[in-house]
Amino acid sequence: MPGERSQAGRPTISEVAAEAGVGRATAARTLGGYGYVSPELRERVLAAAEKLGYRANALARSMSTGVSHTLGVIVADIGNPFFAGVMRGISDASRARGFDTLVLSTYEDLEEEVAATNVLIDKRVDGVILASAAVGRGDVAHIRAALDRGIPVVLVDRAVASVDLDAVVIDNRDAARRAVETLIASGHRRIGFVWGPPMAEPPATRRALLAAASRNLWTDGERLRGYLDALDDARIPFDPDLVMMGRKIEERATQEVARMLALPDRVTALFCTETEAVTGALRALRTSGLSCPRDISLIGFDDSAWAAVMEPPLTMIEQPVHQLGAKAAEVLLDIVGGAEPRREMHTLRSRLITRSSVAPPPSPDA
Amino acid sequence: MPGERSQAGRPTISEVAAEAGVGRATAARTLGGYGYVSPELRERVLAAAEKLGYRANALARSMSTGVSHTLGVIVADIGNPFFAGVMRGISDASRARGFDTLVLSTYEDLEEEVAATNVLIDKRVDGVILASAAVGRGDVAHIRAALDRGIPVVLVDRAVASVDLDAVVIDNRDAARRAVETLIASGHRRIGFVWGPPMAEPPATRRALLAAASRNLWTDGERLRGYLDALDDARIPFDPDLVMMGRKIEERATQEVARMLALPDRVTALFCTETEAVTGALRALRTSGLSCPRDISLIGFDDSAWAAVMEPPLTMIEQPVHQLGAKAAEVLLDIVGGAEPRREMHTLRSRLITRSSVAPPPSPDA
Repeated sequence: MPGERSQAGRPTISEVAAEAGVGRATAARTLGGYGYVSPELRERVLAAAEKLGYRANALARSMSTGVSHTLGVIVADIGNPFFAGVMRGISDASRARGFDTLVLSTYEDLEEEVAATNVLIDKRVDGVILASAAVGRGDVAHIRAALDRGIPVVLVDRAVASVDLDAVVIDNRDAARRAVETLIASGHRRIGFVWGPPMAEPPATRRALLAAASRNLWTDGERLRGYLDALDDARIPFDPDLVMMGRKIEERATQEVARMLALPDRVTALFCTETEAVTGALRALRTSGLSCPRDISLIGFDDSAWAAVMEPPLTMIEQPVHQLGAKAAEVLLDIVGGAEPRREMHTLRSRLITRSSVAPPPSPDA
Repeated sequence: MPGERSQAGRPTISEVAAEAGVGRATAARTLGGYGYVSPELRERVLAAAEKLGYRANALARSMSTGVSHTLGVIVADIGNPFFAGVMRGISDASRARGFDTLVLSTYEDLEEEVAATNVLIDKRVDGVILASAAVGRGDVAHIRAALDRGIPVVLVDRAVASVDLDAVVIDNRDAARRAVETLIASGHRRIGFVWGPPMAEPPATRRALLAAASRNLWTDGERLRGYLDALDDARIPFDPDLVMMGRKIEERATQEVARMLALPDRVTALFCTETEAVTGALRALRTSGLSCPRDISLIGFDDSAWAAVMEPPLTMIEQPVHQLGAKAAEVLLDIVGGAEPRREMHTLRSRLITRSSVAPPPSPDA
C-alpha cells in the first residue's frame, strides 16, 4: 500500500492492524482517536500498538488518512457568552477525540462568514461547525463550497432552511412559549417582546411580523413564534406596539422599553430574547423609576452569574450551551469518521430558572 | 525571479513595481496590505496596479511572499468577556490590513497552550498573539518553537519575564492602587483582596505572598502589588486574613468573602480582581444580609453592561479591551511586514468608572 512502509523501523498503522487481526480502518480509527470502535477491538489494537512500539505522528497521520485532526468553528459573535459556552462544549468534545478547534468570529456579518469559510477550507480542516449569519437568507454558496470539497458542515444554534444539514439547536419556540405562559399565569396581558427583527417600521399584522422574522435569524423567528403561541392560547390580542424592532443593540432596547413603559396602556411584563435586551430593559426600568417585580415583571435569555446576583434575582432561560456545542462536535466527528450525515434537527431542551423577577401586575387602580 | 512570470497575461507584483518605479518589496507591501509604505509610494503603486489591471490572488500572494495572511490568537479563556473584547480588537485591526484571525482557547491550561501553538505552526500562520497561561512559569519552549520557525509572537494582557517579546498590557498595578486608594479615601481600612494566587494556605507575610503571586499569573501579581502599594502609602498593616487564596472559581470567592465578613474585625470593603470574583462576592453579600454600599463597599474588574444595571450600580475598572487587542495586532503585523521587534512593554491605561458601590464604612458603634 503506498505510503505504508515502515520508516526507520517505525511500525505503520497497517502493521498494527495485522498484529491485532483487525482491518486497517479500525486500527486507524483507534489510533487516531476518531470514529466508533467497539471496546473489544479497541483493546486489541492498543495492545498490538504497544507491543510493536507504535507511536502516533500527527503529520504522518494526516498525510496517510487525509485527516488533519482540526475542526473549524465559525461563530456569529465570539463576544456573546452564549457562543463562548457553546465553544467550550465543542472544544471539550473535540479534544476527547484528539481534535483541535480553530475559531473564527464573523460578528454577524455574512461577508465575514464567507471569508471565514474560505480560510477554513484553505487551512484544510476536517469539518466545520457553523453558527450561521446566513440563516434564513438563502446565501449558502459558501456552505456548498465546503461540502463540495468534502468538508462536512454541521450547524449549531441556528438552522438553515435552504440546505439539508445536521443542525443542533435548542427548543427556542417552546422556551419562549413557556416563559410567556409564566408571565400570563401571573396575570399579565401587556407583555413586551424585546427584541424582534431589524426593520424600520413595526409590521402592523401578526402575519407580516412572522414573515419579517423568518427572513432574519432563525432563533429569533422561533422565539417570536413561541411568544405568539402563548398569546394565542390565552386569547390575548397581538399588539405591534409591544414588539421591539431594530438592530440588536442594548441602547435600542433601552429606548424601546422606555417607549413601551410610556404607553397609555403600558406593558406590565417584558420577555427579553437576548442578554443585551435584558440589560437594555433594566436600564430603561432604572430610568423610569419603576421597580421589578412590583411594577414590572421580566424573563429573559440567557441565564448568567450576574442574573443570579441582581436585585431581584432574575428569572431566566438557561440554554444547555455546553451540551449544544458537545453534541454538534460529536455529530460532526461521526461524519468525519465516516458516518453518513443524518441531516436531522437535533433539539435540546432549555430550562426556565425561576427566581424573583416575576410577580402579578400592579392593580389598575393602584 | 522564480514564480514571477506573468500567467495568462496577468501582471505580477514585479511588473507593477517596475511600472511604478519602486522596489518589489514596496509594491508587495502596498498590494498585500501589510507593513509601512509612504503615502506617496503607495499612491504610485496603486496607480500602476490599476493601469496594468493587477488583481491580487490570495493563494499566489501567499506562495510568492510566504505570507498566508492569517494570524493565530491563543487566549486563556474564550468564555471571559475580557478576552472576547480583546479578540474583537485583534480581529478589527487584522481585517483592516487584510488578515484573517484564527482563535484557539486553552482554558488556562499550559498543555493546551503548547498544543495550540503547534496547531498554529502547522497551519502556517504568519504570527501569533498569545494571552499566555505559561506566564511567570518559565515554560516557554513552545513560544521559542514558534520563534525558531520565523513566526513572530506578541503577548497581550500578560507579560512573560523569561522571554524578550513585545507585550501589550494594561496598567494593572496602577489600576489596582487607584481602586484601593478610592476605598481608603472613603475611610476603609479593612479591605479584602478577592482573589489572589492559588495556594492551599495563605502566606503569613507580605513577602511570601508577593513571591507566590509572581509564580502565578502576571496580571494578578501586579494587581496584588497595587493593593499593597495603596495599603503601604496609607500605613495600613497587611493582614493575610483579608487576601483570598485558591483557584479562580466563583464558588470559592463566595466562601472566602463569607469568611471575611464573619471575622471579628470584618472587612468593610472588597477589591475584586476578576468578574467571577465580583459575582462571587455579591453572592456572599446577598447571603449575609449586608447591603452595598451601606455595610460594605466594592470595586471590581472588569466593567460590563451588568455592572451598570445592578442595584447599586457598581464602581468598576474598565480595561481598554478593544484597544489592547488592536494594538497587539498592529505591533504583530508590523513585525510580519518586516519591522524589527521592539521587544517593548506597551502599557495602556485603564479607567475607574465611578458609580454607587462605594460609601464610608458603617461607624464602629452602629
